[in-house]
Amino acid sequence: MPDRSDEFVRISRYFAPLTEGFPGAFGLTDDAAVIAPMPERDIVVTTDTMIAGVHFIGDERPDLIAAKLLRVNLSDLAAMGATPLAYMLNIALPASIGDDWLRAFAEGLAADQAAFAVTLAGGDSVTTPGPSVLTITAFGTVEAGRAVRRSAAQVEDIVYVSGTIGDGAIGLKLLHDEVPGLSPDKRDELIGRYRLPRPRIGLGLRLVGLASAAIDISDGLAADLMHVLAASGVGAEIDAASVPLSDAARAVLDREPDLLATVLTGGDDYELLFTVAPGYAAKIVKIATDISLPLTPIGRIVADRELHITAPDGTEMQLARKGWVHGR
Amino acid sequence: MPDRSDEFVRISRYFAPLTEGFPGAFGLTDDAAVIAPMPERDIVVTTDTMIAGVHFIGDERPDLIAAKLLRVNLSDLAAMGATPLAYMLNIALPASIGDDWLRAFAEGLAADQAAFAVTLAGGDSVTTPGPSVLTITAFGTVEAGRAVRRSAAQVEDIVYVSGTIGDGAIGLKLLHDEVPGLSPDKRDELIGRYRLPRPRIGLGLRLVGLASAAIDISDGLAADLMHVLAASGVGAEIDAASVPLSDAARAVLDREPDLLATVLTGGDDYELLFTVAPGYAAKIVKIATDISLPLTPIGRIVADRELHITAPDGTEMQLARKGWVHGR
Repeated sequence: MPDRSDEFVRISRYFAPLTEGFPGAFGLTDDAAVIAPMPERDIVVTTDTMIAGVHFIGDERPDLIAAKLLRVNLSDLAAMGATPLAYMLNIALPASIGDDWLRAFAEGLAADQAAFAVTLAGGDSVTTPGPSVLTITAFGTVEAGRAVRRSAAQVEDIVYVSGTIGDGAIGLKLLHDEVPGLSPDKRDELIGRYRLPRPRIGLGLRLVGLASAAIDISDGLAADLMHVLAASGVGAEIDAASVPLSDAARAVLDREPDLLATVLTGGDDYELLFTVAPGYAAKIVKIATDISLPLTPIGRIVADRELHITAPDGTEMQLARKGWVHGR
Repeated sequence: MPDRSDEFVRISRYFAPLTEGFPGAFGLTDDAAVIAPMPERDIVVTTDTMIAGVHFIGDERPDLIAAKLLRVNLSDLAAMGATPLAYMLNIALPASIGDDWLRAFAEGLAADQAAFAVTLAGGDSVTTPGPSVLTITAFGTVEAGRAVRRSAAQVEDIVYVSGTIGDGAIGLKLLHDEVPGLSPDKRDELIGRYRLPRPRIGLGLRLVGLASAAIDISDGLAADLMHVLAASGVGAEIDAASVPLSDAARAVLDREPDLLATVLTGGDDYELLFTVAPGYAAKIVKIATDISLPLTPIGRIVADRELHITAPDGTEMQLARKGWVHGR
């Protein structure tokens, strides 16, 4: 907490206002924050660290870096079916970072606090001789015992994904490469999806008591589905042709069909992958309508503990092992 | 949480065992950890980041680095009167860090988990091109509404400190300088106090409902007392001669009396500074006996919103402004 580092006091003029509405933050002036008891609610806790030059490029707008840092955490809360509550912020920044950067970073947090009903509760700030290292630890709440886990997918369950898949991964590729003939609009849309995840909080809340398992897709559809399968002790059969694509991603794939592997393994989707019993299909359709978010069945859970993905041409896809693991 | 980084999976063999006894950690295999509701208990949250080469030297034994990281957080919980519960761990490590380092780091955490009854609940691990950046976010619990704050020190309250002051700051100096004639035993003792804080959990628990304010001394006695005074809207008169010193620190001061300023402003004590109404003096004596920890009155709270420190020679000490702020 602040007392270890007067750096945090120096910059608290940017961050203390973010604690408004959360009395237990004590305006960043005490040793710790306090979360009051909420009867019959579990507290869900997740944390993610991002490093300049590794998890973001480093020259992005500070407000977008802040938003991504917060949103990747909120996406984990969404996958558990939790309602966002508050977060802790740890920032290790080079001495060269100036007040303009801090102000814009705090503005990015403030905008997302309003958008996602979450409040800063505390943090720590230090100066580092290395690249910026940013950590958020986010808290949410869920009815006690009802958090959606990864580990209860059942044979015959339908595998769904929200939104469209692959946009973020293609967006990251577009930051480095060109795809001939792609319109600037589509390019910007895909890069925007990489830069600014959209945590599916509303969907997560509706999956409580309905989904047998859920995960947010950060490592890639295939890798994150594998996490669910491993935790649940089951396998899955996925139809790659049914994986939902944005028009922009479709335009890219039309030109470079090999990028289908990037769609399935690239990550940075921050959509939810979830499994539900077949009898709930109509409920899922209704949820999709209610929240105006496509929810697409892409396959089913099977007993054989393997993941089989059928390519659009009907052959079984062989994804390179390295493709299954984010960032290697 | 782990899913963003398979690095965490790679090293989870060292960390997953640390979650034993905390079911809501799900063995580090889910999107987030879950803390079950505890009726009538507040959850107290604190976080501290340490950087190699800044907050620790970097070549210390990994188990001691781990212990210090955990203990500086536990010290914040102690200052609030909280009982430790669990913690999240974020580690950004250079690629050169090997399994031996990780194993020893985890062993250091395991030893302190046993010592302080706290359990790993989750975390994130990433590879960094810069120095190691280590964050712990620690959770404790306290009877709802009873956390000891910084902000309620009252005029006429007695100011106490636990243990001995200045050992850590002198220990850090000894790592860089020599003090002629100091015995190796005393040198090792002081350096050990810098390397391994002793969070005063037992004392903190006993101060709930008794102390009007408390803080852990990390920035330095003077600076942290100033935090209490500012939060409480009061001042204090402190008698430097009454600040408790270890025999080792006394031996150093006998040779270099100017180091008294280091004692009062150096920080890294991780003792508790607290204020209590004069009528409670006998209770404080009893607590000191019960927990075998010296609790020493060093001054009193006054209405005038300033901090006056009387030197051993009776003059008023003028501590350089920079001396009040840790790490500048």
